[in-house]
Amino acid sequence: MEKVKMKQDFLKKKIIKIFKLLKLSNKHSLICANALINAELVGAPSHGLSRLKMYCDRIKKKVINPIAKIKVKKISQSIAHVDGNNSIGFVAADIAIKTAISNAKKTGIGLVAVKNSGHYGLSGYYAEQAVKKNLICMVFTNAPPAIAPHGALKSLFGTNPICFGTPTGSKVPFILDTSISMINRGKIRVAAREGGKIPEGVALDKLGKPTTDPKKALEGVQLPIAGFRGSGLAWMVDILSGVLTGGNHAGRVKDPFTDFSGPQNIGHLFFVMKPNLFVGNSFNKRIKDNIKTIKKLPKIKGVKEILYPGQNKFNRFKNNQKKEISISKTVLKDLEFLENI
Amino acid sequence: MEKVKMKQDFLKKKIIKIFKLLKLSNKHSLICANALINAELVGAPSHGLSRLKMYCDRIKKKVINPIAKIKVKKISQSIAHVDGNNSIGFVAADIAIKTAISNAKKTGIGLVAVKNSGHYGLSGYYAEQAVKKNLICMVFTNAPPAIAPHGALKSLFGTNPICFGTPTGSKVPFILDTSISMINRGKIRVAAREGGKIPEGVALDKLGKPTTDPKKALEGVQLPIAGFRGSGLAWMVDILSGVLTGGNHAGRVKDPFTDFSGPQNIGHLFFVMKPNLFVGNSFNKRIKDNIKTIKKLPKIKGVKEILYPGQNKFNRFKNNQKKEISISKTVLKDLEFLENI
Repeated sequence: MEKVKMKQDFLKKKIIKIFKLLKLSNKHSLICANALINAELVGAPSHGLSRLKMYCDRIKKKVINPIAKIKVKKISQSIAHVDGNNSIGFVAADIAIKTAISNAKKTGIGLVAVKNSGHYGLSGYYAEQAVKKNLICMVFTNAPPAIAPHGALKSLFGTNPICFGTPTGSKVPFILDTSISMINRGKIRVAAREGGKIPEGVALDKLGKPTTDPKKALEGVQLPIAGFRGSGLAWMVDILSGVLTGGNHAGRVKDPFTDFSGPQNIGHLFFVMKPNLFVGNSFNKRIKDNIKTIKKLPKIKGVKEILYPGQNKFNRFKNNQKKEISISKTVLKDLEFLENI
Repeated sequence: MEKVKMKQDFLKKKIIKIFKLLKLSNKHSLICANALINAELVGAPSHGLSRLKMYCDRIKKKVINPIAKIKVKKISQSIAHVDGNNSIGFVAADIAIKTAISNAKKTGIGLVAVKNSGHYGLSGYYAEQAVKKNLICMVFTNAPPAIAPHGALKSLFGTNPICFGTPTGSKVPFILDTSISMINRGKIRVAAREGGKIPEGVALDKLGKPTTDPKKALEGVQLPIAGFRGSGLAWMVDILSGVLTGGNHAGRVKDPFTDFSGPQNIGHLFFVMKPNLFVGNSFNKRIKDNIKTIKKLPKIKGVKEILYPGQNKFNRFKNNQKKEISISKTVLKDLEFLENI
């Protein structure tokens, strides 16, 4: 796949321009641009610019509200409920994680649920915001049907990630952001857009046969991790982020790429807490010791270092931070088209 | 394996008698007996009477404190820290879940961490207590080394279960209680004690070779679900239940069966919340709709019903509730020996 390089600032300005053309405020356009660029820098292009056209299409077709008035309802000093008013997911999630962080700083814990939101990119991006404020964080979101519940022949659960972040006493945060499917749906989409293949054993076609063709996989079923265990975890995430929050659930979150019949009404749940609640200032020493002990274990042949979740992503970010961003020709076309509406 | 049947009440009295002989109070002995019998009734004998002798051995060797003074430190209206004083895990966990439930009833959420505890049986047993009070619950605990971190050649994480429970609007609770290993360590222990085998693909021997011999598996390494994803989830549980709480972590929880050099100092974390926090009284309708929709999906050939986590356990409990309990000859010998100290 041929790639084009583009300066980060230049790209960011382009994205902001595009969202502003579609009536998003300065502030909201900046939030979206930052999230999309971050996804590219951490090496998750499936959640980056490859989705820009989709977001814009949804705004144009009035299933994302560009001038959303997001309401934050205070339930207690610790708890809040955000109504995203069908905003682009980035913006509702940004307000929600900031509210959760602020509540946790005040009371030790912050629990914030979001309804009427949309796809918000990477869960880890929000967890990282909490970790940077020296907080522990769990993030749950649901997503369009991709995985069949255990025993069922039809997809219903999203790839429903479980995300957990904690300070580590070093500048590299521990961010676990793992979908409950064998592969991210975003990765299948990128392969489909760019003519690539997907690994064996991660998806079935619509007839229930194994496939490595990303297009067939998108029509079919993604496989959950670990059978009934993964299916149960995906169900838990659907309940926590959908049933509990007032968001869509039970397979009713619309596919953002193909279903323009209405807003997605995705739900998210953010749970944030202070790491020193129970062990005071020794938390830093304890987590450092934890990581150090694990890193010292004997390694499998060929493994140089035992990495904790988030280290790879951090290294990619650091490496890419001052570089130009490589984008595919498909994305370049999207940008040129969207800028000239 | 030959089995012996015993009346529940008779068995319960025996267990209480045994614990009282070892200086546990009436109340604490009853808590332990209830938890052990429950494990048998829900069909998890690996967490039931097969462990009775181990608990007693640990008390005799002074690494479980039979007259523990458990302290509950109030941190806020929602948050508390329990110091188990090296009690048997059942007792510290019982106080902790009850505190979390009471805090959630008052403030919407309850977060209770436990340190200086021990093996407490099934996480689902505690989640169920919260669900019976119409609350949503998450429970985390760590455990002795059983699973190698991704990239490592040595076990360090426990089977570290993730447990989630929610009311369902029916009398059958949704209780997901899934270890992060391919198989419960308790099941391997039962197979080892009773001369059985374990399935292929769930464990390696101490040289790193696949094995179906439970004794070799206990000396070796259990495999995590889904490679780095499962390893990351196990690491998350170690941080939440160990690093955060003041419990042991990073592989320092002692094997209760083989290591009598000191208390286990296991940590647990209980997080409980009201289901109506964000959607009010419609929660019941929403969760019923969620489950109903999923149950209606087309099924894989041979599957009669799509079950949610906890249904099987509930059915076994209901089925066994009025029956005598089958115990193995090994357990019978334990009982006879322990009663006549």
